[in-house]
Amino acid sequence: MDEPEALRRLSEVVPNAGDDAAVVDGLIVTTDMLHETTDFPDGTTAYTAGWRAVGASLSDIAAMGGVPVAAVAVYGVPAFEWDEVSAFVDGAQAVCAQVGSEYVGGDLDSHKEFTTATTAVGRADEPVRRSGATPGEIVCVTGTLGRSAVALELFERGETERANQLFQFTPRTAAGQTLRTYATAMMDSSDGLARSLYQLGDASDCGFAIETPLPLDDRIGEVADSPEQRLEHGLHFGEDFELVCTLPEEAVTQASAELSVPLTPIGKVTESSVTLDGELLPDRGYSH
Amino acid sequence: MDEPEALRRLSEVVPNAGDDAAVVDGLIVTTDMLHETTDFPDGTTAYTAGWRAVGASLSDIAAMGGVPVAAVAVYGVPAFEWDEVSAFVDGAQAVCAQVGSEYVGGDLDSHKEFTTATTAVGRADEPVRRSGATPGEIVCVTGTLGRSAVALELFERGETERANQLFQFTPRTAAGQTLRTYATAMMDSSDGLARSLYQLGDASDCGFAIETPLPLDDRIGEVADSPEQRLEHGLHFGEDFELVCTLPEEAVTQASAELSVPLTPIGKVTESSVTLDGELLPDRGYSH
Repeated sequence: MDEPEALRRLSEVVPNAGDDAAVVDGLIVTTDMLHETTDFPDGTTAYTAGWRAVGASLSDIAAMGGVPVAAVAVYGVPAFEWDEVSAFVDGAQAVCAQVGSEYVGGDLDSHKEFTTATTAVGRADEPVRRSGATPGEIVCVTGTLGRSAVALELFERGETERANQLFQFTPRTAAGQTLRTYATAMMDSSDGLARSLYQLGDASDCGFAIETPLPLDDRIGEVADSPEQRLEHGLHFGEDFELVCTLPEEAVTQASAELSVPLTPIGKVTESSVTLDGELLPDRGYSH
Repeated sequence: MDEPEALRRLSEVVPNAGDDAAVVDGLIVTTDMLHETTDFPDGTTAYTAGWRAVGASLSDIAAMGGVPVAAVAVYGVPAFEWDEVSAFVDGAQAVCAQVGSEYVGGDLDSHKEFTTATTAVGRADEPVRRSGATPGEIVCVTGTLGRSAVALELFERGETERANQLFQFTPRTAAGQTLRTYATAMMDSSDGLARSLYQLGDASDCGFAIETPLPLDDRIGEVADSPEQRLEHGLHFGEDFELVCTLPEEAVTQASAELSVPLTPIGKVTESSVTLDGELLPDRGYSH
């Protein structure tokens, strides 16, 4: 059984699962595990790993429109090097500070492979789910897409300093809280825009008609020569941790005005199927 | 650098760390990572693993006197077998249900070795810390000691059914909430009674004069022939997840009357050093 299928079956037995985070008693709780071979390219610093791992959990809080309260992490490695542990914690604290949350520690574990498990806790009385989109509404994305695709290419080229900087993304918790007032459905784009649209469509029982151009990262030209390649990165790479949301057409201007990050309308909510410029968009993401 | 030293240094840079759980904004958050080679003996079922891993985090909530609200887990294995995933979740749900908490899901991860990271969240406006013990007070322990030592021996003998049952402990969250009114310092006994006393002593700047007999599990005779062996298991084995707490002498009777588990006075809080029947108790635990 592959991971998506196991996750799908899990969501049937754990009623509270199946969204970006679980909601219980006014609290939002989300947890993720990342490890060296699949999530951290060669050249990723411990500071960036701490930032990114904790940031990914904070992004899940953002995706529900929650106010982040605290984050914890378990840091598992074969042998503890204080410089590395300390840099990981510095990165974790930095990303928490950036969103007004608090890094409150965690645990250490001796582990064969570098493995980190992060958990974030937030508050939201009325969290935004994936399930509220209605045909006729507008689908939007915050920020730009393709940043992590650029970073990965830079890691491969050995340009690790810039790559690490790009990997230190800002979780969209402030945007999420603003969008909570307007969005009918929301999630983060961690599995790529295309996968996110399919997941929103599944949860809301709707489709999407997406129109180019998409808001792509300015630097994407550095790693993708053709327009097709650039679009591929923007649609399918993922790990950008932007918010994908739906809202009534009349709310878009007001929401944009209140946000400190760009909010780009990329299409409309439809009855079924996900299309890009009128053609079926493949349900394909980057498998992390 | 070994794990205790790294944890000690971590507690200097993460001000909120260093207790059984972190406290922020009325919430208690705790996270742990367990994995196959060190935490789950051969014969441990996935159900027991889910119970025990989530139970360990709930025990940290208990140790602060908190009300458990929710728990999550990440389940990492090389390949997903639905029967195993499902049994793990059943165990996690069962231990949460037993303490009135809710298992709200988590994440799956492909991982070389079975690894689980669990997080529990609770509430407590005035959590009990490790740091409030004062000389003259009484030190007590809930329940009995040595249960996990018995379980481990049974696993080694291949008596896995009984061993699994013994491994499914009840987190002392109800006792913790009652003791919150009376206890001046509290923690759980996961590293063994001896280590717990040293940690309480460090945090409270005090010592303890412990007197035998200790409340040992009835079944400990099955795995330890001599009184010395039985005492060794009770003092140093750990993983029993009982509560060790200090309280004023006049409160012991009242606290005992309100608890539905036994509360046994085992000695007094002193100015310094930890002794057993007048002799220095080694600061030695079971390294997990």
